[in-house]
Parts: sequence; C-alpha cells; structure tokens
Amino acid sequence: MKRVLLAAALLAACAANAQEKIDLEMTGRIRAEAFNRSQVMKTLGELTEDVGPRLTGSPGMTRANAWARGKFDGWGLANVRDESMGSFGRGWEFSDASVAMLSPRAFPLHVLPKAWTPGTNGAVDGDAILAKLESKADLDKFKGKLRGKIVLSSDPRAYKFGDKPDMERYTDQELHDLIGVEVPADREGGDRAAMIKRFKDRSEFGPLLNQFLVDEGVLATIGISGRDNGILAVQGGGSRKAGESVGVPALVMGAEQYNMLARTLGKDGTVRLRVNVAARFTDAADQPAYNTIAEIPGTGPHRDEVVMLGAHMDSWHAGTGASDNGAGVAVVMEAMRILKAVGAKPDRTIRVALWTGEEQGLLGSAAYVGEHFARYPEPTDPEQKAIPAFLRQDKGKLVRAGGYDKLAAYFNLDNGSGKIRGIYAQENMAVAPIFEDWLKPWNDVGATIVTQQNTGSTDHISFDRVGLPGFQFVQDGLDYFSNVHHTDLDTYDHASAQDLKQASAIMASFVYNAAMRPQKLPRKPLAD
Amino acid sequence: MKRVLLAAALLAACAANAQEKIDLEMTGRIRAEAFNRSQVMKTLGELTEDVGPRLTGSPGMTRANAWARGKFDGWGLANVRDESMGSFGRGWEFSDASVAMLSPRAFPLHVLPKAWTPGTNGAVDGDAILAKLESKADLDKFKGKLRGKIVLSSDPRAYKFGDKPDMERYTDQELHDLIGVEVPADREGGDRAAMIKRFKDRSEFGPLLNQFLVDEGVLATIGISGRDNGILAVQGGGSRKAGESVGVPALVMGAEQYNMLARTLGKDGTVRLRVNVAARFTDAADQPAYNTIAEIPGTGPHRDEVVMLGAHMDSWHAGTGASDNGAGVAVVMEAMRILKAVGAKPDRTIRVALWTGEEQGLLGSAAYVGEHFARYPEPTDPEQKAIPAFLRQDKGKLVRAGGYDKLAAYFNLDNGSGKIRGIYAQENMAVAPIFEDWLKPWNDVGATIVTQQNTGSTDHISFDRVGLPGFQFVQDGLDYFSNVHHTDLDTYDHASAQDLKQASAIMASFVYNAAMRPQKLPRKPLAD
Repeated sequence: MKRVLLAAALLAACAANAQEKIDLEMTGRIRAEAFNRSQVMKTLGELTEDVGPRLTGSPGMTRANAWARGKFDGWGLANVRDESMGSFGRGWEFSDASVAMLSPRAFPLHVLPKAWTPGTNGAVDGDAILAKLESKADLDKFKGKLRGKIVLSSDPRAYKFGDKPDMERYTDQELHDLIGVEVPADREGGDRAAMIKRFKDRSEFGPLLNQFLVDEGVLATIGISGRDNGILAVQGGGSRKAGESVGVPALVMGAEQYNMLARTLGKDGTVRLRVNVAARFTDAADQPAYNTIAEIPGTGPHRDEVVMLGAHMDSWHAGTGASDNGAGVAVVMEAMRILKAVGAKPDRTIRVALWTGEEQGLLGSAAYVGEHFARYPEPTDPEQKAIPAFLRQDKGKLVRAGGYDKLAAYFNLDNGSGKIRGIYAQENMAVAPIFEDWLKPWNDVGATIVTQQNTGSTDHISFDRVGLPGFQFVQDGLDYFSNVHHTDLDTYDHASAQDLKQASAIMASFVYNAAMRPQKLPRKPLAD
Repeated sequence: MKRVLLAAALLAACAANAQEKIDLEMTGRIRAEAFNRSQVMKTLGELTEDVGPRLTGSPGMTRANAWARGKFDGWGLANVRDESMGSFGRGWEFSDASVAMLSPRAFPLHVLPKAWTPGTNGAVDGDAILAKLESKADLDKFKGKLRGKIVLSSDPRAYKFGDKPDMERYTDQELHDLIGVEVPADREGGDRAAMIKRFKDRSEFGPLLNQFLVDEGVLATIGISGRDNGILAVQGGGSRKAGESVGVPALVMGAEQYNMLARTLGKDGTVRLRVNVAARFTDAADQPAYNTIAEIPGTGPHRDEVVMLGAHMDSWHAGTGASDNGAGVAVVMEAMRILKAVGAKPDRTIRVALWTGEEQGLLGSAAYVGEHFARYPEPTDPEQKAIPAFLRQDKGKLVRAGGYDKLAAYFNLDNGSGKIRGIYAQENMAVAPIFEDWLKPWNDVGATIVTQQNTGSTDHISFDRVGLPGFQFVQDGLDYFSNVHHTDLDTYDHASAQDLKQASAIMASFVYNAAMRPQKLPRKPLAD
C-alpha cells in the first residue's frame, strides 16, 4: 500500500495551495436564512430571560439543559441528549441580596453574593471591619477580633476615569496586526515551580479561611468589585464540594460604595451594616453536571465522522450570562437551525455541544473530549495529582478513544456577542489556507483574517490540547471587557443582534464546509 | 459734573485696552496654598461622606448647613449665617429601597426612589403591568385596571453601546471653537405659546396623576433610568408641597433590568415583584430652606462693596452629590480658606454663598438676589403668575434693593469636578479683556479662554438675569454627563483632586482680583 500512502502524502503537501471547493449556492442559502429569518435573538432571549442565569450545577443550568433539548427536538435534530461530565459539586442559587448602611448614615448599598456561599437566614446587623485575610499570618492577626463583624476584605481602589470607549471593534490595522505572531521567548526556569507553589498555597488557604470565618463568628464578608462605575463583577466563593466548609455569606460591592465604607471606617471607626442574603445549596451531596448534545446525522460516505460546534451554556449568576456565553450558545444553536432550515444534507455528522462547567475550568468540554476522543492519563504521583494538568511536568502518553480519528473539526464561540472578524488557527499551519478560502464569502461582512496566534481560555482548548483541530473565532470585543464580562451587566441588552446574525451565518458555513470537505481538516503535529 | 461724567466715560471706553493690575505675589501665595496645602478633597469628603446627600429641605441639607457653618467658623470667617430662601416644602429622606422579582425567576433588581414619594411601609407584593400614564386619556384607559399592581411607567429603551470615552477634556481645538458665538436666529412666534401650554399641561397633570395612582390602589410605579449600564439617574416625583397628593412609591430602575421586565411581561404576561421602600416626609407642613453665607470683610475704601462666589450645596439623593455640586461647594469653601490662609486683606468684602434649592430651579440664589440685590415684580395677572418667570411676556420693571450697586461680581462653579479651562463672559463685552488678563497666571494649568457665550442652568443666572455680573467658569467635563450627573455614581471617587486644586486656586485668584480692582467689574446693558 506504499503507493497509496505516497499519494496521500503528496495530496497533503499540496493542500496549502489547492483552492477549497465551496458550495456557494448553499452558502447563499445559509446567509439568507441567517440574515433575513434569524431566530438568534429569540433564542438568546429565551435562554437569558426565560431560563435566566445558569451557574454550573444550579437549577438554572438544569432548566437550560431541558430548554435546549426542547429547542433541538423542535428543530428536528437527532440524538438530542444530556451527557454527564461526572461529579461537579452541589447546586447553588440565590434569590435576593442586600446590604444597607444603618449608621453613620442610612443608605442602601448595591451588592451581589458570590456563588457557593451561604445565605444569612434573614437580616443580620453588625459593625464593619477592614480585614484583609490572605495568609495564615492574617488569620492569626485577626483571631478573636471578628465575632459579629462584617468583614470588608479588600483594599479600597482608586477610581480610574474611562479614557477609551466602552465599545471596541477591530480596525483594519488592528486586524492586520493580529495576524502577527510573537516568537516565544525562553521560559524562565522558576516559572513553573512558582506557579505550582502559588496554586498549592491558594488551594490550601481557601478551606482554612472558610473554616476560620465560621469559627470566628464572622457575619459576612464584602469584597470590592473588580470594575468601576458601580458594575458588580462576581464569581464564586465558599465551596461547592459537599463536606467542605462553605464559609460565611460573601458579597461583592460596587467599588465606589466599597471605597466610601472603607474611608468612613478610616475616619471614625464605626459603620453599622445590615446584610440580608437569600441563597441556598440545592443538593446535600455532590451531583453531576451535564452537557447538552444534538446532531444532524451525516448522510454521505463520511457519516461516521463528526464536525462539532459548541459554546458553554453555564454562566455566572450576576447577570443573565448573555455575552458569556448565551451569545455563543444562541449562535451555535442558530447555526444548527439554519442548517436544518436550508435542508443541508451533510456528508459528515454535525454535532453541537452546549458545555457545562466552562467557568470552573473547561470542565464539561474536557470531560467530553476525554470520554469520546482522547485524554492524558491521571497521574499516580499524588504530588502531580494535586496540581492542575497544565502545570504538570510530564503529561504522560495520550490515551485515544475510538472517536479520535473521526473528529473533523471543532468550532467554538465564546468571546461575547461581537461579530466574527476571522479565526485563530492555533499554530495549525495547514489549516490556514483552508480557512482563508472559507472566509472569502464573509469578507464583505467583516470576517477576513486567519491568524496563527493561539487563543485560550475557552472550550476549543479541550480539543486543542489533545491534538484535535479545535478553533475559536476572532470576534469584535464590543463592551465585553469594559462592561459585561462576569458582571451584573451581562444581560440581553448588551448583545448585538446584527453581530450575532453574522456570527450565526459564518458558524453554519464553516461547519457545513467542514462536513462536506473531501478530507477532515488537517491536524497540527502533537508533541506526544 | 459734566466733566466727571465725561472722564468716567472715557475711562470706560479705554478699559478694554488697559492692562489689569494683578498682584502676582499674592497670586503666587494663593497658588502655593491651593496646590501644596490643599484641603479641597478633605472638605469634599466630609460633605459627601460624613454629611451625605443633601436634597433641598431634607435633614441631610440641614446637616450640611450646620457643617458648613462649622467649617467657616473654624476658618475664622465673619458673618457666618444661614439665610432662608422662604418656604420650600416638606423635607424628605429615604434609608432603603429594593425590588425583587419573585416570579417567573427570583432575582434582586437595582432601584432607587424618586424624591418626595412615599415609602411602602414594609414589603408589598404585586404583579407588574406596563402602563404609560402621560395624559388624561391614559388615565381613562387604565382606570379600574391597576389595583394592587406595580406599574412600569416607561417605554423600554434600546441599549446603545458607548462609542466615546466616559471622560472628556477639552482639546485645544474645542476650546478655540468655544470662543465662537452663534448669532441668534429669529425666534419663531409659536415658541413661547407652545412652551407655556406644555408647562401648564404638565403642572396640571402631575397632581392629577398622583391622586389617580392613590385612588386606583397602585402599589408602586417603576420608571426606566435615563442612563444605560445599570446607572440610576434619579430626581424627584410625588410632591414636596404639604396638602398635595404625594402619589404612591415611585422608583427608578436600571435600564437593562427594566427592559428585561418589559420583555418578560410582553412574553407571558406575569411578573410578580416585591417592593420595599423606607422613605419618609420629615415635616407635616412646608418649611423654609437655607443658604449658608460667610464673609471675609473688606478692609479698604470699598469695604461696603461685595464680591461673591458660590455653588449650590443641595444635591439629588441617588449618590452623594459629589460632582453636582459638592465639587463646587468644596472649591468655593477652599477658595475662602486659601484667602484666609494667605492673609488676604481685601479692599471689598468677599462673601461666599452655598445655595439651596438649585436643583428645583435656582431657588436659593434667586431668593437671595431678590432679597439683597434686585427682582422683577411678581405679576398680578393670574395667567402670568401661573407660568415661570422666563416664559412671561413682560417681566415688568426691575425693583432694585440697596445692595444692587454694591455687588462687584459673582463667580459660580457647578459643572462637575473638572478643572477650569476659561470663563463664560455672558455677552459682557467689557469684562472680557479683564478676564483675559486675570487668566494669564493660570494659562499654564490649562485655563485660557474667555468666551462671550452664555451658559445657563446654574446660580450665576440668578445674578445675570437682573443685570448683575454673574459668571460660571468653563470646566472640563470628565465623566459628568457620561456617568455622574444626577445618578448613583455621583460620588467622591468620581471627583478629580488635581482638577479641584486648580479650580480652587483660580476661584480664589478671581475673587481676590475682583475684591482689589479699583472699579467694580463692568456690567452689561440691562434691557429694562
């Protein structure tokens, strides 16, 4: 069979220069459906405002799984199902949270609770105290001094006037610059050791702090929001794991109001607050969390191969998870709807995944990839086991599952609701000219560039790190980082309908092209 | 005495070309005290965070009057006193306000109450209903349909991405352009009549609506904030006048959350809310409100003449009134402190006024000017009496008080905490070259232009409209209109220390120059 192998090798070598064959008639149908009969905002509205926020493992996320299955069933997709990512932790939800200053003035303060922290069981009153608790030495220092207190746990932070517009779009020059790649510098030797130490210190200190706060009788903690202008940026606290201390009610307050409390404390030493948080853990024991999956089955000779698209459906709880990542979910769902609506009969099977647990470390997609495609073995060394995968010295040898050779590509969307301006090729040299061709029909709506830059921090990485071709698109930022990322402003209004229509069209088109291409997309060499 | 008059006329004609004599040694002392030993942020901090917000007629404003008197006494100022502006209305304050969505989801919503609206007397639950109530026809339409409901009283509003930086400073070009004056167009004949009709319709409808809401058993009304990004822009509602209906609890909600409620109502028709507002009227009958006044007595031949400086101390209640107008108050107070600190012995008396009731229509300064300087007579025609002064056809003949000829100048600061870039000469041609000279020592810190433009909307207008030389400085905008104006973000953090030091120095310098100048500042011709 040497000749066949040689022919395949030659074909691969030439792929960079061959023009991709694109079904422009189908591309036009996709475009018309996406632009003129869009349901992307309807889908996003249902997800964010009927279902609401979707913290991993929460009743909201369970509602979202059911809602998504219902939508997929309604659109006639096949193999609609939830797949467990394994044990996640306990569910948590909140319904109300308030802090009021009682003295020296009476005034309501704007707060939201950190996920996986307890409620107050009604209103509790206490004096505020500034106490940064970031080390064992801090705990020693404040031991015996915090009973009945409400701990302000952050440093105040000077306000910074916004000198750039909230809204960002790539200029032509910026897009051009984004194609440039910086050659890696040598890593300094101490890097990994220092990161491991920091990780271990943090993992040890968290539970210690939670128990300390409970033992010392602290009523609640309040931290400063990471954003100015009253925006509340909120993530998790306490613990989601059954059997671990969840600490005490923990809140995030707008920076301006937090600074005011800190200054008032600094002046006369007494600030009395009333805290009221209605929050609850919805499970006694750790529970699994679920990805929702659906398919358009392939009908051609490669029907056993799969093109995947996905976005994470879990969100934080401060807003309604519209840009992070309701937008991505609405787009990949809309891409599936479009493909059904235009009567696509793909060669390969097209499979959409709405991931869970992305915000806690790409958990849903990583579990899925491990189960269906490939995974690195769990280390047996307890030292290595205790640190996250990306910090381990030796990843071990990749364990491939049956689906590994069958995945043609994975496309992800998770950088807000901004339109697609191109795609990150993730150092996959062979895929670049293919994507350039695929983008051509979308150049006129602003999607133009292929960059070899790696982008991280979302679910395509679960594919990329086992050598599978997983990609995230380049998207305009809009107000993702100025306003909405993990904040109470991550709501429907901050999503851009025009941008999401464009992204839906391109997502459907890329997926369709990947499903119809004679070969699967080329993979980059795996350092295994 | 003809010769004397002629000499005076010649002198006046030459004034435009004469160089102003400025005491640069004293200017340097003022500058050093303002820049290097500033207390302006300390003063602003006390006013905004110890005293708090200062709604006209509220206990907060009473505290502010007392605090300001204490500061002035402490600095050794003379004739420290409060002066009544006459009857204002009833005091009002609030200590807490919250709305929670109970169904279809449970979630806290961010709100603040409108001033002079009642509290709820504990939590009340009701279904939301969209009902714009802007005319008698609207009231007829909704009669009998609102009992036990929470009325969403605004149209939803599409979100607009911020495409300009929050923070504004004048560029050189913009400052240059600001010197340009547009020659007035002819007023259209119908203008005044239409404005009078609109005013009368509004004044009649307000009390009608308040009584309707009470009679119909509406639990509360919620309106959309005029700002995006969760910012709460809040002013007054209900009524401050004893004997008038105060309506029902009225709240302002962040635009994104309001839109969400409106969309949810539009979809399935039921949104259940819990409203809890702790607010109270602090007086049974209408009460006066007070300006706080203090002086550095003149010691020279013109000691019976007065130079005034001022800013309004009243604020809205959503934030702490830091930029509007704690900043102006801190600057004029600091200017007085500086003048005392540098040992100024002014020829004329320097008098500072911290006005009340500015937000309700320059009430405090207008009353003060009417009492001490001049006023137009109250019309006897009830038709004319019922409309505001600026809409009246015939103002009547100005009634001058004893102080009218003794006022050398009034300087006001009320455009946020941005530094001074110049001054509005208000069509006073003769004063322009004087101000140009006075600005020269401050050109290097960005204050350069004199424009003949009229600027309005603050207390110098109370002087200007009776022919007295009252001026407001040109100030950088910072985030005044993007974030803080009448919003919950109008807080200490959004005030710029460097800008306020600069403004304090220039204010002190202008006031000192006006107090030392051989003649009072020229006045513009009064169309009387």
